[in-house]
Amino acid sequence: MLLRAAARPPPIARLGRPPSLLRTRPFSSSALTPPPPRPRFVRVRTFVRWSGYLAGSTVVGVAILTSAIFLHDAFTYNTQHIDGVPVSPLALHPERGGPKNLPVLRRLLSDYQDEENEGLVDKPHLVIVGGGWGAVAILNTLRPSDYHVTLVSPDTYTTFTPLLPSAAVGTVQVRSLVEPLRKLLARLRGHLLNASAVDLVMSERLLEVETVRSDGTKERIYVPYDKLVIAVGSTSSTHGVPGLEHCFQLKTVRDARKIRQRILDNFEAASLPTTTPEERRRLLSFVVCGGGPTGVEAAAEIYDLCQEDIINYYPKLCREEVSIHVIQSREHILNTYSEAISRYAENKFLHDDIGLITSARVAAVHADHVEYTTRGPDGQAVRHEIPTNFVLWSTGIAMNPFTERVSNLLPNQVHKKAIEVDAHLRVKGAPVGEVYAIGDASTIETSVVSYLLELVDEADKNKDGKIDYDEWRVMVNRIKARIPMAESQLQKVRELFDLYDEDSDNTITLNELAVLLQEIGNKITALPATAQVASQQGKYLGRKLTKLAKQRDVLIQNGLAFGPGADEAVSGAFKYLHLGSLAYIGNAAVFDLGKTSFMGGLAAMYAWRSVYWSEQVSSRTRALLMIDWIVRGVWGRDLSRL
Amino acid sequence: MLLRAAARPPPIARLGRPPSLLRTRPFSSSALTPPPPRPRFVRVRTFVRWSGYLAGSTVVGVAILTSAIFLHDAFTYNTQHIDGVPVSPLALHPERGGPKNLPVLRRLLSDYQDEENEGLVDKPHLVIVGGGWGAVAILNTLRPSDYHVTLVSPDTYTTFTPLLPSAAVGTVQVRSLVEPLRKLLARLRGHLLNASAVDLVMSERLLEVETVRSDGTKERIYVPYDKLVIAVGSTSSTHGVPGLEHCFQLKTVRDARKIRQRILDNFEAASLPTTTPEERRRLLSFVVCGGGPTGVEAAAEIYDLCQEDIINYYPKLCREEVSIHVIQSREHILNTYSEAISRYAENKFLHDDIGLITSARVAAVHADHVEYTTRGPDGQAVRHEIPTNFVLWSTGIAMNPFTERVSNLLPNQVHKKAIEVDAHLRVKGAPVGEVYAIGDASTIETSVVSYLLELVDEADKNKDGKIDYDEWRVMVNRIKARIPMAESQLQKVRELFDLYDEDSDNTITLNELAVLLQEIGNKITALPATAQVASQQGKYLGRKLTKLAKQRDVLIQNGLAFGPGADEAVSGAFKYLHLGSLAYIGNAAVFDLGKTSFMGGLAAMYAWRSVYWSEQVSSRTRALLMIDWIVRGVWGRDLSRL
Repeated sequence: MLLRAAARPPPIARLGRPPSLLRTRPFSSSALTPPPPRPRFVRVRTFVRWSGYLAGSTVVGVAILTSAIFLHDAFTYNTQHIDGVPVSPLALHPERGGPKNLPVLRRLLSDYQDEENEGLVDKPHLVIVGGGWGAVAILNTLRPSDYHVTLVSPDTYTTFTPLLPSAAVGTVQVRSLVEPLRKLLARLRGHLLNASAVDLVMSERLLEVETVRSDGTKERIYVPYDKLVIAVGSTSSTHGVPGLEHCFQLKTVRDARKIRQRILDNFEAASLPTTTPEERRRLLSFVVCGGGPTGVEAAAEIYDLCQEDIINYYPKLCREEVSIHVIQSREHILNTYSEAISRYAENKFLHDDIGLITSARVAAVHADHVEYTTRGPDGQAVRHEIPTNFVLWSTGIAMNPFTERVSNLLPNQVHKKAIEVDAHLRVKGAPVGEVYAIGDASTIETSVVSYLLELVDEADKNKDGKIDYDEWRVMVNRIKARIPMAESQLQKVRELFDLYDEDSDNTITLNELAVLLQEIGNKITALPATAQVASQQGKYLGRKLTKLAKQRDVLIQNGLAFGPGADEAVSGAFKYLHLGSLAYIGNAAVFDLGKTSFMGGLAAMYAWRSVYWSEQVSSRTRALLMIDWIVRGVWGRDLSRL
Repeated sequence: MLLRAAARPPPIARLGRPPSLLRTRPFSSSALTPPPPRPRFVRVRTFVRWSGYLAGSTVVGVAILTSAIFLHDAFTYNTQHIDGVPVSPLALHPERGGPKNLPVLRRLLSDYQDEENEGLVDKPHLVIVGGGWGAVAILNTLRPSDYHVTLVSPDTYTTFTPLLPSAAVGTVQVRSLVEPLRKLLARLRGHLLNASAVDLVMSERLLEVETVRSDGTKERIYVPYDKLVIAVGSTSSTHGVPGLEHCFQLKTVRDARKIRQRILDNFEAASLPTTTPEERRRLLSFVVCGGGPTGVEAAAEIYDLCQEDIINYYPKLCREEVSIHVIQSREHILNTYSEAISRYAENKFLHDDIGLITSARVAAVHADHVEYTTRGPDGQAVRHEIPTNFVLWSTGIAMNPFTERVSNLLPNQVHKKAIEVDAHLRVKGAPVGEVYAIGDASTIETSVVSYLLELVDEADKNKDGKIDYDEWRVMVNRIKARIPMAESQLQKVRELFDLYDEDSDNTITLNELAVLLQEIGNKITALPATAQVASQQGKYLGRKLTKLAKQRDVLIQNGLAFGPGADEAVSGAFKYLHLGSLAYIGNAAVFDLGKTSFMGGLAAMYAWRSVYWSEQVSSRTRALLMIDWIVRGVWGRDLSRL
């Protein structure tokens, strides 16, 4: 008894001191005997105490944090009044002008917020059209006070598009994917113009936009610009398939909301006993056209919803009769990914009973079924039908009306799907250095041969009209600088030269050169229409615009400030760095990192989430997203059909 | 130096032991001298250490919690497959019957989930119509396995209606106010029928409901019941005002979403320089018709939105030109609250520049303005106009079509605004003990005189056709038991008796009694159409239904199981206990607790939030609501117009 009392630490010290420390270092400089080995139950007790102390401190710490939040909260309730904001008549009653004599927005209401805003009025006017990945990347890269920035967008927010399939079934909330553009513009003291771009007057540097009045009528306005960036994205390609009005798309949060509603509609209707068994199977049949990442993720998310939530709250019969199909025109789903990934995803879907219909073409979409064809063994097209009440269309992109209009304005624009830009992202044919295009709306030219004469002029030093090997090496560097995408085609400098030097005289003629450059151009694959490309292009352009603003005085001294040469003077051509592709395939994920790939179950899924989490545009959406994932884990998805 | 070393506690103990404890209780049983007072910098250092330790433990604790959440999360991804759910043909192909030969849902698909669900099929079928406060209170009060519960609702969720004004401006998210009914029903193994009630065949105990097929056509079905609860709420009263199609209401989350969209629409349109100054003022004019709690809270929330968010991201001119008006027909806003509260709210609104137009009647609502009249000094009606692009209509309630239909089916239902029920919440005129009505859909009868003969029969013991004072006292107790709402009118038993005993012979005649009871009935005020009443009625009914189920055998033995008498045998009449009213008035709140009232700024606002927070129907919405409030505090409201 005496021994135990002596071994016991003094009463205060007992409050949760870590047991290991307690054991190894007894109190020195005292008359205590060294403690004997402690019996097991004492160790358990100290562990309990230790845990108690940790829990206690956590509660205290969290309580302090909460109080801090409350305290902060209490100061966010603003009671200031504002009176008499001075606004120039120019902003209240814009003058008319331009070819169509429309109001020209030379001044905006928000130019008169304060002195700093007014100071920006004389800076170059940068107008960005669109509010997606490209536009936001520019906004986040620019420095404040370099430009008077106006963003033209029919939506007042930007969307984190890669998680739309998750939002479509309620794994995350749509509000967690959007960030108000006005908040992103605030850092630059920029302005949002809630309008759609419809036309362009490049000679007068006027962008024509259309706004909607409160009574629904439309009004057109000119927005003057010094530099214009077209980042309006794309629409879905129809591929000429009839009946797409019966399909859902998945490009906006509105689409995601509609899909969520339809899915729950279908389950409610299927739960009614008066629904016939055939109709029930049709209601519970989900068809996704397109086996790219969006289609695959949407199919996977619908499967998750059924497995994790529907199964618990709807009649089991409904869960049993669910069928999910993915119709893909190529031989494999995720065909832009590595073969191992395609195979892994296909096996996962096979295991999950998600029907894969590959090498098939959708022939038509009807209100109650999808029609598609496959090739029979004799090469003949065979028609099939899937009864369904939900079709998602996610295949390819096409130009939206504004992109098409811009393309039509310029005679040298011939690309079918996007505006062609040079390697500096300048729209080809537009006044140089005034109009840029990025993201899905644009495609970088891959034609090397169109630079033939310039290249020869630069490289042919002895002016003999032929190119020898040394001159060819110089030329290769020029091509790489002009069209960085040609780089991979120009790896083997000697081999290429020898291949086209048919008479082996160590020179190639201009004709041979033309064929060579043509071939190289044909081999370049265009950049994919992904968020990653748009975002890198936006960052590149934002940095270039910043450099142009910084070096404006130098450029003016060299006569380069306006017109050609300025971009080349401050920046190289745009180079795309592929960081990899990833996709969610239902409690599993795949990563294609170029040379390696990585795939797996939950661990990969968490990794997939981490990547998207770190890519968020604001700490707000980051927090909301994390909360959504936790809420799903704790309470499941919200099955309310709002 | 030696002294300091001695005074210093052993190295391990220094890790974060609270300094106060350390000072007051030195280590005993040792040869140490008592420590001298510590110099200030040592105290600072221990404080820093102590804080560091606290922060460290908090981080560790939070990390452990997070890991636990992740670990739990990892087990929520379900991979089970289900095959071969046996379902009775009765559920797959319902038989037809009833007066209209419609399908009769004697069995549901979800009756075959498992054995427990199948076991409930033979229990009494309880059908609840509606998914609001009353219905949810019943669901949360019932015991599992007493009834086969079916809830009929066109919405698949229940809404926390008191916070709709907050959701309408984005202070909280609409998804934080809804809880799926299927999740609430799961505890009772109940069933949701996604349909609207349209008619009732009381003789065959069939409820007629209407469902919507996926192609938009409607189908009618009979739902058989043993007990039916009507809890369908109400619609807004038009008060005969033309043009209400131009108004918003605020009864559902859909309304809240539409309002949020319109408010942001107005601000976007007002931000355009091409909008004329008159039109801008109209766009920024918000009119609320109705000075009850909903109207007042909506006005306050719109004001908050402008003050805390719009002001930061929209042109200041827009904030300056905002006008908010509340049009109230009575002399004061919040006129059902105490006078002090009305006055406080009016002063707050005056300070906030919210226009109060009292004693005014809305004459008509037009697409671009509201017309109202006030009484001039000569008693003549004076017409006024407010140009506006946002009108909220929140005045009074009216019957919805189903309530009206039920009311019309029963000849003794004469109330204009709701179904009349007795004090046991049984619908008057319906087969006794089979049909109940609660919440806004119902009103408790206040007519005492209709019980005259029964009361006399019970009380007039000497059968002399007169009532003496002793008999009157008996009668008063009977009245109180039958109609608890008459209690406050029956406080002064003697005085009442004397007042009507005109000839002072210590008896009152039947005629005198009839007048007395009529007067008492007239003085009773009907219960207000609030969530509190509906919720208490739901709880009362849930408890009664549980008792009826528990004592079923006893009731059968006494011949009371079916028909009259059963309710009285197990339960008293419904008594309403007013817990107080509260309202948010813009960074301030008011509480009317009957005898006392409480009002104030932020502290009251936090109290107001606490009350609503504790009233939440699920821990999920509770968590979401708390997150919403924190998110608003940290990042402001989301200004995205989805």
